Amino acid sequence: MQGFTLDERLQRDSALIATLGLSELRLMRDKRWPWLLLVPQRPGVSEVFDLAPLDQTMLTFEINEVARALKEATGAEKINIAAIGNMVRQLHVHVIARFEGDANWPGPVWGHGTAEPFNEDEMAALAHKITEAMARS
Amino acid sequence: MQGFTLDERLQRDSALIATLGLSELRLMRDKRWPWLLLVPQRPGVSEVFDLAPLDQTMLTFEINEVARALKEATGAEKINIAAIGNMVRQLHVHVIARFEGDANWPGPVWGHGTAEPFNEDEMAALAHKITEAMARS
Repeated sequence: MQGFTLDERLQRDSALIATLGLSELRLMRDKRWPWLLLVPQRPGVSEVFDLAPLDQTMLTFEINEVARALKEATGAEKINIAAIGNMVRQLHVHVIARFEGDANWPGPVWGHGTAEPFNEDEMAALAHKITEAMARS
Repeated sequence: MQGFTLDERLQRDSALIATLGLSELRLMRDKRWPWLLLVPQRPGVSEVFDLAPLDQTMLTFEINEVARALKEATGAEKINIAAIGNMVRQLHVHVIARFEGDANWPGPVWGHGTAEPFNEDEMAALAHKITEAMARS
């Protein structure tokens, strides 16, 4: 996408697992929770209402597809979805699988403790489960 | 809306300020942050992807309208938007105005400290500013 460059912190903290119509779908390098990011490939956007109307609708579609697939792939108790961006201003939407008894349940994941990295095999296996669930829907 | 009953905790923690096409727009009784809730008037829904497709689009429209108005009314540095629902399962979307140096900036608002109630005049004044900003857009 012309002019779009992924924020350095998002790049470092997550890995690309698919490119959707609007967004990069990325998996956070933190095995405490199955935690995805959707990053719309649009330059200079930090609030959802700064997106063009059609992009807003596409983002909603992508969030819902990804959230449903994440729930199906993981059997999560609840999916948490958020656009926060107090630290990284490039618009990115969190889609996170939560389980009773997980780290910080029922509190939020943001700002809690420090990331626990996956090994590459674990990360690839989770990414595969999620993209498979997306392909089925 | 047939069959829709607002969750008791949402009822207690927030006040109705407008009824939109899909959602109740409510203001949290916590003056630490200007904090709105959108509660789609649909029974038995806890995940955004459980809404009918047209309702998903309407909810996106309402979120974006409310978020833009909240930013305009408050001059917020960043708007935080989230559907979490680990504790209250009835679908509700948080739309929160954040400022550098506010309580827990840049961390999240959920689970931080305890609510500081408004007096009725402060609450009515903030609700009025927000609904006025919505009417202008």
